[in-house]
Amino acid sequence: MSNETPIGRHRWAIAEGYIPGWSNGPEPELQSHETCCVLNTGPNSAKVSLMLYFEDREPQGPYLLAVPARRTVHLRFNDLQDPAPVPRGVGFSCVVESDVPVVVQHTRLDSRQAANSIMTTLAYPV
Amino acid sequence: MSNETPIGRHRWAIAEGYIPGWSNGPEPELQSHETCCVLNTGPNSAKVSLMLYFEDREPQGPYLLAVPARRTVHLRFNDLQDPAPVPRGVGFSCVVESDVPVVVQHTRLDSRQAANSIMTTLAYPV
Amino acid sequence: MSNETPIGRHRWAIAEGYIPGWSNGPEPELQSHETCCVLNTGPNSAKVSLMLYFEDREPQGPYLLAVPARRTVHLRFNDLQDPAPVPRGVGFSCVVESDVPVVVQHTRLDSRQAANSIMTTLAYPV
Amino acid sequence: MSNETPIGRHRWAIAEGYIPGWSNGPEPELQSHETCCVLNTGPNSAKVSLMLYFEDREPQGPYLLAVPARRTVHLRFNDLQDPAPVPRGVGFSCVVESDVPVVVQHTRLDSRQAANSIMTTLAYPV
Repeated sequence: MSNETPIGRHRWAIAEGYIPGWSNGPEPELQSHETCCVLNTGPNSAKVSLMLYFEDREPQGPYLLAVPARRTVHLRFNDLQDPAPVPRGVGFSCVVESDVPVVVQHTRLDSRQAANSIMTTLAYPV
Repeated sequence: MSNETPIGRHRWAIAEGYIPGWSNGPEPELQSHETCCVLNTGPNSAKVSLMLYFEDREPQGPYLLAVPARRTVHLRFNDLQDPAPVPRGVGFSCVVESDVPVVVQHTRLDSRQAANSIMTTLAYPV
Repeated sequence: MSNETPIGRHRWAIAEGYIPGWSNGPEPELQSHETCCVLNTGPNSAKVSLMLYFEDREPQGPYLLAVPARRTVHLRFNDLQDPAPVPRGVGFSCVVESDVPVVVQHTRLDSRQAANSIMTTLAYPV
Repeated sequence: MSNETPIGRHRWAIAEGYIPGWSNGPEPELQSHETCCVLNTGPNSAKVSLMLYFEDREPQGPYLLAVPARRTVHLRFNDLQDPAPVPRGVGFSCVVESDVPVVVQHTRLDSRQAANSIMTTLAYPV
């Protein structure tokens, strides 16, 4: 393929979401966080929107971001502000939509105890 | 999509299941646990049933739960009681069935040693 | 579904394999290990064979096991003996074949340092 | 199948990439690293190329490697040199292409704190 072939899907879902409520270690590297990595291999910028789902309230969003052509964005849910920050220590889920194909992977770093722990999975390609 | 489009599958399988037998750290956050996250993006409540499979006995279940419309449930296997609790320190597997499409992700937190560890994966969409 | 519907695939691949070379903590729980979880939801016992692939030698196997009807097996690669044990501290991959559909998930516990770490993923359904 | 059946896909994507910037513990085992495991079950050597994508610069590559017939390669991104090393502490993504079918899994070991953490996922089969 050329370096500009779009790869992936327009919609992805992450059923597990949770930002641990506290941290140990230097920030920003070892702050407890939850990340959504979005890869756009195509020649056009991707308009991406995130919708968050909770256990006890209506969905929150959309959160809007751009992933430029031939770029990746490693987005920390911790940094989302508009329309509202993501509550800490609360379970959520996420649906990612893009106007061009992208690939989405979900990662968490949990540093609530002295040594951090990490986990990752491919998101569900809808 | 609208915020009410159902996403996912009716049936999912998790081959790896195990609730570690002990814990370090404050509960409930750092109790060793195994979680099944179920996202229902659709407009109708999901009737979900779990069946557990073991290495040395007949399947146990069904465990019944509801995931309301536009909600996620992060269910700890530790909390299952009916028809029977899930034994600790024993390997199991799980099949999740829903009457509407849902997305399922599997997560474990293991705090048997001083610093917890976490792992996650998308369940297998049947 | 009934409790006896076969779920999954006949063949799965795990590209990442590695049994850490040492451990901290009580055995068997906290021994560093690599596991292949095989779920057989069907009414007939599954005849399963594993073939291991290495970086510097010919494939090793087949390793044969049975997964009874409506059961799961959480197999530690550490315990494989016939036709040969799995070397420690060496990278490998694994192909799992079954005569009936099964679901396969891959997990590692690494306790080489003071607090163990775990990771998991769905295997690749061929 | 025979031991020589090719399994997998020609192209895979890993959206999450990051080599932690420092380490604790003996090298090479416990050096913080990011790995791409490539399994080639077929009868012919695989010509594999990696292209890396970043948040703030043009894609970097291709990195070329061979995976011999019936072999696996567990490639550390840390070891890539040509056309350029992979920067530490920087987010990236990766697209893997092969002229024959292969299976790809992504793994990280993070030993920035006293006890290492590991995570893994199947790559996205394009």
